[in-house]
Amino acid sequence: MVPQWIIEKKRNGRALTDEEIGFFIQGYTNGAIPDYQMAALAMAITLQGMTPDEIASLTRSMLHSGIILDTSSLRKPKIDKHSTGGIGDKISLALAPLVACCGIAVPMIAGRSLGLTGGTIDKLESISGYRTQLDEAAFLHVLNTCGCSIIRAMDNIVPADKKLYALRDVTGTVSSIPLIVSSILSKKLAARLDGLVLDVKWGRGAFMTTRTDAKALAQALVKTGQHLNLRIEPLVTDMNQPLGRAVGNALEVAESVDVLQGNGPADVVALTLELGARMLMMGGVAADRKQALERLRAKLQAGEAFERLKTMVQLHGGDPHTLDDPSQLPAAAIREPLPARHAGFVQTVDAGAIGRAALLLGAGRTRVTDAIDPAAGITALKKIGEAVSIGEPLVILHTNRRDCLKEARALTADAFRITAESVSPPPLMTLEI
Amino acid sequence: MVPQWIIEKKRNGRALTDEEIGFFIQGYTNGAIPDYQMAALAMAITLQGMTPDEIASLTRSMLHSGIILDTSSLRKPKIDKHSTGGIGDKISLALAPLVACCGIAVPMIAGRSLGLTGGTIDKLESISGYRTQLDEAAFLHVLNTCGCSIIRAMDNIVPADKKLYALRDVTGTVSSIPLIVSSILSKKLAARLDGLVLDVKWGRGAFMTTRTDAKALAQALVKTGQHLNLRIEPLVTDMNQPLGRAVGNALEVAESVDVLQGNGPADVVALTLELGARMLMMGGVAADRKQALERLRAKLQAGEAFERLKTMVQLHGGDPHTLDDPSQLPAAAIREPLPARHAGFVQTVDAGAIGRAALLLGAGRTRVTDAIDPAAGITALKKIGEAVSIGEPLVILHTNRRDCLKEARALTADAFRITAESVSPPPLMTLEI
Repeated sequence: MVPQWIIEKKRNGRALTDEEIGFFIQGYTNGAIPDYQMAALAMAITLQGMTPDEIASLTRSMLHSGIILDTSSLRKPKIDKHSTGGIGDKISLALAPLVACCGIAVPMIAGRSLGLTGGTIDKLESISGYRTQLDEAAFLHVLNTCGCSIIRAMDNIVPADKKLYALRDVTGTVSSIPLIVSSILSKKLAARLDGLVLDVKWGRGAFMTTRTDAKALAQALVKTGQHLNLRIEPLVTDMNQPLGRAVGNALEVAESVDVLQGNGPADVVALTLELGARMLMMGGVAADRKQALERLRAKLQAGEAFERLKTMVQLHGGDPHTLDDPSQLPAAAIREPLPARHAGFVQTVDAGAIGRAALLLGAGRTRVTDAIDPAAGITALKKIGEAVSIGEPLVILHTNRRDCLKEARALTADAFRITAESVSPPPLMTLEI
Repeated sequence: MVPQWIIEKKRNGRALTDEEIGFFIQGYTNGAIPDYQMAALAMAITLQGMTPDEIASLTRSMLHSGIILDTSSLRKPKIDKHSTGGIGDKISLALAPLVACCGIAVPMIAGRSLGLTGGTIDKLESISGYRTQLDEAAFLHVLNTCGCSIIRAMDNIVPADKKLYALRDVTGTVSSIPLIVSSILSKKLAARLDGLVLDVKWGRGAFMTTRTDAKALAQALVKTGQHLNLRIEPLVTDMNQPLGRAVGNALEVAESVDVLQGNGPADVVALTLELGARMLMMGGVAADRKQALERLRAKLQAGEAFERLKTMVQLHGGDPHTLDDPSQLPAAAIREPLPARHAGFVQTVDAGAIGRAALLLGAGRTRVTDAIDPAAGITALKKIGEAVSIGEPLVILHTNRRDCLKEARALTADAFRITAESVSPPPLMTLEI
């Protein structure tokens, strides 16, 4: 097979065979096919699309570029949750221990932040001592002991995705449904899941800016899951305003602790329960949504889920007392409230602008090699529909970078639109897709 | 400027600015932008197209990646001819000296063969001693002395095209009109022409398989020429059957000598005269087509054009006596006629299949590093409309590779369709586009 003939075939809008896709991904992984040919094919895929069969085949080829974990020793249903990413999305931190308390095993392989969206791995690393890289045996040990473990991907899991993701980032081929689907699902299949609950986000702070695009991505994910025998339950959720009131790594850990202690922002709690209920139903440990929600609420109220998170942190080498006293988490030297200039009701909070402000404050990275400041970010964020009086803080900015403060302040102020009439909050979730 | 933002803009179908195109081409030429980003942009251009302004801007950026020749010492109108390439297209060899005899300067920078289409440079190199690489001073000396010189591009002429052409060849981005136009015209502009006559070919043996595509390419070339103040006269010509009766390097030199001696196949003579007439009119040395054709025919008949070719060859270090006695050109050990299996009239001769057969016999290369055999190829080719009797040769195969003969024979036999009814030859040229 000749790589350029395969590129030309896709350029002409024709479907590639299993053999052609396998040849290309294998060649790219082992270095026989250079970056420039992969870049040309990725752009052709971005513009010409792929059939469901092709997406399944691409996902399978990516999966088989590396090892598949042997999770057969786990005696519980293995259900994971994946979010396509957004601003203030810390759901995994409370969700994984919560559903683990209900008899689900959650072998979660998570990512770092890049661009505007946060990464669960960076959030966990703000807890002193937490090791995000475990080998297969240690990962299985944590899972067998406490039912959940959140790690970053080992080097030999889907190496094709590691190479291809970095290439897509610099070749304008990130926003392609076939490439997104194969990237997400190949990593999930490497953990041999029984089911996956997906949180597909749309809006100003998400990859997909419209609900229509998010639905199309959700449908492609479900369809590919069917091809590959992976049950997938998608939820399409709003990411026009940030999720919760905190954005930034240690700040989001603290908000997750609030949730596990029975408090926390209403949207974070509601989404955690909704995603959790689906995981319980998929795993067969709850008969219906009502029963599932009851079990989850009971585990939250009894403090069991919070204890489970502390156990998981301890098994990863982290200090669980940090969670009992979040003031021990990294804290920023500068904490500055941003006062409202008008009284009224919050009409919009541009999640994209809040994400850019948090990045400027030090909470994110624009290149994979950038360092992040775990203490930086935003808290006390006013939500759409809430009333504000003049001078009342819209947010509190946390940073150690005085030089970026002015720009972050302006960005944050511009993110808010305040109106005289009362505003109803938008629906967070689209339950049917 | 960030390369991936420019790629994304083109991916989304938007027009790039002069600055963006200049930044990209300059960065690619000096190595700041890697092959994989250029490959992604080339694919986005291939699938999303470019506006006339963008194509002009791309051509200008390519041109300025290298030096521009100072041809101001030439006191004659500088007119060149360019063909998009086909099987048996040896027109330049007779045309350049012929129009030079009529007072036109022809500073022709030509290419090597790649894939099925032949290259003028390889044809000239079958003449013992001919140097195809001259520096600027030597090139101008030949032009001032005999009015025409055919060389390959110096390293510092349009270096962006050298890099980009090699990349396009392996990334499925060869057949893009904006990329073809900028590649052709940047090199022509580097010779500061006063005008360019274009032979845009379509059919089984050409890049563009339909006449519609060839017309679109011709129109894009003319339009871009207008943007860049280069007068262009296009001719769209048929390349479904090979041009002339000979395919292969030394074999085509011999056929060109036939033409210059007043013989040669009718189609080669007709196309040489038609293209030459346009060059004379563009250069202002003939008032109209009738006068131009008369002058060209007179120079052919007087043998002046043949003498001019010998002078050019001598000035390039080649042996002109080879042209007086073409039996001194490289000759193949095996010369085998391919007999017709049926009597009748030639209905089609698939130029693509003939090109592949000639390549197998040793006349072409599939990679730029392949060596070619100057003696290999095909002669005595029957043309559409001609009558053949059983056993009469359809072609004569010339090769030094006995092992490829069987496959070449089968390919050639399949290229011919013979029918019982008489057939009219198709029109060679489309005069208006």
